[in-house]
Amino acid sequence: MPAVWLLLLALPLRAEPLPSWNDTPTRRALESFVSAALRRDGPGYVEPAARVAVFDFDGTLAVEAPVYGQVSFSVWRLERRKAALPPERVQRLAAKIRALPPDRLVELSWDDTVELWALGLSGASGGEVQRDADEWLRTDIHPRFGRTRGELLYEPMREVIAWLKTRGFKVYIVSGSTQDFLRAFAEERLGVPRENVIGSELEPAFAEAAPFEVERRGSFRELVDKDRKVVEIDRRIGRRPVVAFGNSDGDVAMLTYAAKGPRPGFAAFVHHDDAEREFAYDRGSPVGALSRGLDVAAERGLRLISMKRDWKRVFAPAKAPAREPAAAPR
Amino acid sequence: MPAVWLLLLALPLRAEPLPSWNDTPTRRALESFVSAALRRDGPGYVEPAARVAVFDFDGTLAVEAPVYGQVSFSVWRLERRKAALPPERVQRLAAKIRALPPDRLVELSWDDTVELWALGLSGASGGEVQRDADEWLRTDIHPRFGRTRGELLYEPMREVIAWLKTRGFKVYIVSGSTQDFLRAFAEERLGVPRENVIGSELEPAFAEAAPFEVERRGSFRELVDKDRKVVEIDRRIGRRPVVAFGNSDGDVAMLTYAAKGPRPGFAAFVHHDDAEREFAYDRGSPVGALSRGLDVAAERGLRLISMKRDWKRVFAPAKAPAREPAAAPR
Repeated sequence: MPAVWLLLLALPLRAEPLPSWNDTPTRRALESFVSAALRRDGPGYVEPAARVAVFDFDGTLAVEAPVYGQVSFSVWRLERRKAALPPERVQRLAAKIRALPPDRLVELSWDDTVELWALGLSGASGGEVQRDADEWLRTDIHPRFGRTRGELLYEPMREVIAWLKTRGFKVYIVSGSTQDFLRAFAEERLGVPRENVIGSELEPAFAEAAPFEVERRGSFRELVDKDRKVVEIDRRIGRRPVVAFGNSDGDVAMLTYAAKGPRPGFAAFVHHDDAEREFAYDRGSPVGALSRGLDVAAERGLRLISMKRDWKRVFAPAKAPAREPAAAPR
Repeated sequence: MPAVWLLLLALPLRAEPLPSWNDTPTRRALESFVSAALRRDGPGYVEPAARVAVFDFDGTLAVEAPVYGQVSFSVWRLERRKAALPPERVQRLAAKIRALPPDRLVELSWDDTVELWALGLSGASGGEVQRDADEWLRTDIHPRFGRTRGELLYEPMREVIAWLKTRGFKVYIVSGSTQDFLRAFAEERLGVPRENVIGSELEPAFAEAAPFEVERRGSFRELVDKDRKVVEIDRRIGRRPVVAFGNSDGDVAMLTYAAKGPRPGFAAFVHHDDAEREFAYDRGSPVGALSRGLDVAAERGLRLISMKRDWKRVFAPAKAPAREPAAAPR
């Protein structure tokens, strides 16, 4: 019997785990960290319960330029359901949206962005938002890449998620986008269970009357960004992550939390330095600005993943045949 | 190879799963529900990802009379650390506590209760609160039973948790007590992972400076009770539970949510009707009042577990030898 178990355990170890990565120091550092985490008698050992890995979403797992997915999706959903919404609010917001070219929607004020999220999502259950987001993922085409949003996930990072899971890590997404939107990506496309999605939220409400559903209300609860990412990790997971990935100044606190614990963790920014295959931006960018992160990275032991040098490819190759219809999210 | 797997799968099926339960209609209804949930071709089948079970804590998993554990623990912790707290606030609260007999501390006003929780826990990290709560669990003796708080968990409900887990259910605790306090019970004593604990909280804060910890602040965030239990389930788990246990009016919404979904769930109140072995209370009780729950139970299909008739024993027998020292919570 033990021999059977050993055989089963050995199977996933043999496959090349990170085929979309080049053999660079960053990749080797990640592999060393994870190997050490599994070596029971070594100094880097991490007991199974403490194997927690957190990933930012926009710009870390998915394309965020020129406009965050949550913004594009909210505009798309607002357009479809505007008939059911207060006309004055819709008109006021629509005028502001029309005043900007679609690739500059991140220039909306924060108040207008919150209004967009609220109007785009309020009145729906989580399941409804997820079903709509799933449709958007399968149909909305990114202006630069000509591919659906659901295809524009970074293949090297998907590989890291899958590989960490085979090593007994619990993987979480921690993002400023809304949980319902993120959950449309999480299980099917990223292998992250719905309950491991930590995001922003519209204030929800439940009434003990048919259909006995939790409904999203218009008011925005809190943006899960910067120190609020750490607070939500503590609240939801109750453990300090030992692995953390981000890409912007909104992730500095989360990466610091993972790196600077009593047990040093592995923390890295995805650095968008690949104008040819994706985008090149950091300081001063309207999306995913990385400035303070670059300033403190060396001192705090936060690594930089160079999209250009560390990644063999950015996206999975396009599939020729039609996609299978996605399962209903709930 | 398949034969080995079948053998492994069959092993847990053979043990008697609920030895502390009498063979009553309630127990048989629970067993039928779970059997049907596993029968792939049957009408009651629940696919593995949807196997979510939620448990209230006070009065459902642990003794809550005459005073909720969170209240007793907060008084205990306040006493130990009062030197480090604002003296006027401590004196004001201490006077109110002394004005009541210890077994009537639930009569503190809601504002005083919030002040007690805040003073008792603020300034600590989650790990500190859990370590202290663990000490309290091992040392504080319940006035009626003469046993430590950590021993006063309902053995029949612990068996339900363990049994549901062997059936592929994810088990969550959803309670008005604070998460840090609940987490001291959860992993070791109830087999519920820390991240599956959903409770109330003091507003937390994180600063990017040593020791890089999330600290509890004095202000109370929100009591997870009534409809807020459902909202937190939706937020944290993202799925409607198919099994739910509670014991008071604070659980009516959560049990209704589980029972009245598109797929009817199993939902039950633990009814404290056993003055001899535990306590007898429902309508009008200062702790765990069950009144509206009794009114709507039949109409909504919420069951009543009779502590007196359904349970063969309430607690695990006292262990003679010294307890093993508990593992540090983080």
